[in-house]
Amino acid sequence: MSERPTSLPDSAVYRDRLARAAQELSAHTTDALIVSVGRDLPYLTGYDAMPLERLTALVVTPGRHPVLLVPALERPRVAEIPEAFETRPWAESDDPIALLADELGDARTVAVGDQMWSRFLVELLDIRPDITLRRARDVIGAMRCVKDAAEVAALAAAGAAVDRIAAQLRSGEIPLVGRTEAEVSADLSERILFEGHQRVNFAIVACGENAASPHHHAGQRVIGVDEIVLCDFGGTMNGYCSDITRCVVTGEAASDVAEAWDVLREAQQAGVDAAVVGASCSDVDRATQRVITDAGWGEYIMHRTGHGIGMEEHEDPYMVVGNDEPIRAGHAFSIEPGIYVPGKWGMRLEDIVVATDAGPVRMNTAGRDLPSVTD
Amino acid sequence: MSERPTSLPDSAVYRDRLARAAQELSAHTTDALIVSVGRDLPYLTGYDAMPLERLTALVVTPGRHPVLLVPALERPRVAEIPEAFETRPWAESDDPIALLADELGDARTVAVGDQMWSRFLVELLDIRPDITLRRARDVIGAMRCVKDAAEVAALAAAGAAVDRIAAQLRSGEIPLVGRTEAEVSADLSERILFEGHQRVNFAIVACGENAASPHHHAGQRVIGVDEIVLCDFGGTMNGYCSDITRCVVTGEAASDVAEAWDVLREAQQAGVDAAVVGASCSDVDRATQRVITDAGWGEYIMHRTGHGIGMEEHEDPYMVVGNDEPIRAGHAFSIEPGIYVPGKWGMRLEDIVVATDAGPVRMNTAGRDLPSVTD
Repeated sequence: MSERPTSLPDSAVYRDRLARAAQELSAHTTDALIVSVGRDLPYLTGYDAMPLERLTALVVTPGRHPVLLVPALERPRVAEIPEAFETRPWAESDDPIALLADELGDARTVAVGDQMWSRFLVELLDIRPDITLRRARDVIGAMRCVKDAAEVAALAAAGAAVDRIAAQLRSGEIPLVGRTEAEVSADLSERILFEGHQRVNFAIVACGENAASPHHHAGQRVIGVDEIVLCDFGGTMNGYCSDITRCVVTGEAASDVAEAWDVLREAQQAGVDAAVVGASCSDVDRATQRVITDAGWGEYIMHRTGHGIGMEEHEDPYMVVGNDEPIRAGHAFSIEPGIYVPGKWGMRLEDIVVATDAGPVRMNTAGRDLPSVTD
Repeated sequence: MSERPTSLPDSAVYRDRLARAAQELSAHTTDALIVSVGRDLPYLTGYDAMPLERLTALVVTPGRHPVLLVPALERPRVAEIPEAFETRPWAESDDPIALLADELGDARTVAVGDQMWSRFLVELLDIRPDITLRRARDVIGAMRCVKDAAEVAALAAAGAAVDRIAAQLRSGEIPLVGRTEAEVSADLSERILFEGHQRVNFAIVACGENAASPHHHAGQRVIGVDEIVLCDFGGTMNGYCSDITRCVVTGEAASDVAEAWDVLREAQQAGVDAAVVGASCSDVDRATQRVITDAGWGEYIMHRTGHGIGMEEHEDPYMVVGNDEPIRAGHAFSIEPGIYVPGKWGMRLEDIVVATDAGPVRMNTAGRDLPSVTD
C-alpha cells in the first residue's frame, strides 16, 4: 500500500502538468500517452497506483480530456480532480485492455510509461498491432527532470533528514562494532522513518570486503574493528526521495583506504563542480573518473557517477558517459563515485545535487571525511 | 533492497525448472523467453533482481544454455549456478538492449515476463520490429501455478504465522478502540515481521465506513466502539506469501452486520467447497456469489472471489467468473468474498486454500466468526 504525499500540491498543478504533457505529445508528433504504474502517474495526477494485475492507465490525447482507467475497487483511493482528468472505473467483468484500446481511438504513435507492466503492452499489441510504441520518457521526460521550487524544497527536506542520520553515524552515535550489517540496516531504517520519511527505500550497510559490492544486501556479517563501513540509505518523504552515502572506519583506516578516500573525496568534488547548467551528463561522469584514474585507482571504478532523483530513487538524467544530454536548471541527481577493490574493501561518497543558474547546490551537507568511530 | 529466501532450494530445482521452461517453449511453438523483474526470475534462477533502470534479463531458448544478463554491479548479488544458467554481466558502457537482441538471435516469437518494464520492450521492438510477443504467463504460467511440496510447506508456514496474529486480533490482544487505523496497521506490520516474515506486504486496517473500500489505506480515522474493523494483512516468508482477512467488532455488531456476516461466512465456505480439482476458477467465484446474492446482498459484491498466491501476493490462477481454467492439484489461491455497503461498513473473510486430490486444504485456521473485542 503506497502512501500519498501528505501535502498534496494544488489541483492546478496537475491540470497544468497534464496540459503540458498534451503539448509535448503534439510537439513530438505522438498521438497518445499511456501512463500506468510508476512515478509518472502521481506526477501527472496525484494518484499513486498500487502495482497490481488489474490495469490502471492514464490516457492523455491532445485535444481531449485525459482519462484515468482504474479498477473499480481502487477508485476510492483516487483523489479525483475532474477539471484535470476524468476517472473511469472498470468493473471486474470488464476487459480493461479493450477499454484502453477504445480510449486510444485511432492513435498510431503511442508513448508508454517506462514501468508499465509488459503484460498489458503485449495484450494491447495483440489487438492493436498497428500501433508504434515509444517511451513516454522521450516525450514527457524532460518535464519531470526539471524540478520546480516546491519539488526542490521537498528534495532539500528529505536530504536534511538523511543528513541528520549521517551525522549520527559519523559521530559514533549509531553502534557498529559487534553488530551485524543487518542490525545496523534495521537501525538506519528506523531512523529514516523517525526523521520524517513515510517510506524506507533502502539501507545498504556493507563492511570490509562486502563494501566492494555496490548494492550489497546487508547480511549477517558482524562488523569488526578497523573496518570500513559503507552506509547508503534513503527514503521517500512527501513523495520525494532522499539518498546519501557516507563511510566510516571502526578504528584506524589502513593506509591504502585512507589514500583512496582522499582521491574519492576529490573526485566527488570534481563531479559537483562539473555539474553546471549547460554541461553534459557525460562531463560529470568523466570528471569523477578522471580524478580516480589519474590517481591510479581507475580499475576499481564499477559504476557511473550518478542518477537523477525526484519522485523516484533513480530517474533521468543519468550521469554516465554516453549521455550527452545537457544539464538544465532544476535537474536533480546524485554524484556518487566509488572505488571498489574486490575481496578487500569498497567506498562511495554520495550527495544529491540540484543544478541551478547560480551553480550546483548540494542537498546534503553532512561531513565528507572518513571519520573514525571507535567507541 | 529485496531479500532472498533464507532456505534456498537445491540448485537442481532451478536446473529442473529451467529445463521444463524450455520444454514449454517448444510445446508452445515459442522461440525464446525473456524474464526480467518479477517472481518468475527467482522461481527459475533463485535470483531476485531489484527493479532498476538497469536491465536484468534471463533468456531461455530451447536447445541452448539459459543466459542471465545482469548489470555488472549487481553480479555479486547473484548466487551463480553455472549448471543451470550462465551469468553474463554487462558493463556501464554496454548497450544491454543490443546484448538482449543478440541473445535472442533469430527468434521470432518471444514470450516476455508479465512485469518486465515496458521501456525495455519498447527499446527491443525498436531494433527488432519483426518479433511477435506473447505473455510468458501463457507459456510457463501453468508450471508456477502448481506448487510442489516444498512450496506448499512454505505457504503453510507463512499461513500459520498470520494465523497467530489473527488469533491475537480476535482475542482482543491487539488494542483497537481509540487507536487510529494507521497505528493498528503499524502494529500488525511489526507482528508480521516478529512472526517470521522477512517482508510486510500490506496491513490494511479499515473501520466502519472505511471498510467499504476493499483496498482502503489505513489512515488517521480513530477506531470507535461498536464498529466493524477489517484487517487484511500478509507478508513474505522465505520467498512465499501469506494473506489473511479477519474482521472483529469493537462491542456489539449492528443487526445488519451480524446478519451479513453469517451470509459471508457461508459464502466463503461454499467457495472453499467448490475449489476441487477439476472444477473451474469461475465455479469458485460463482459459488460465493450465489450465496451472497441469494441472501439479498448481491448488489454489495465489489470484487472477484480470489487470486492465486505463491511467490507473489497476487498471481495466477484468479478465481473470477470468466476464467474457465480448471483447478489442478497444487494450485494455491485465496477465497475471500466480501460485502461492502458504501458509506456504512464492509466485511471480508479470507483464507488461502491449496487444491489437492484429497480436496481443498486451508492454509489458515484462525476462527471465522465475528468476535466482539470489547476491552
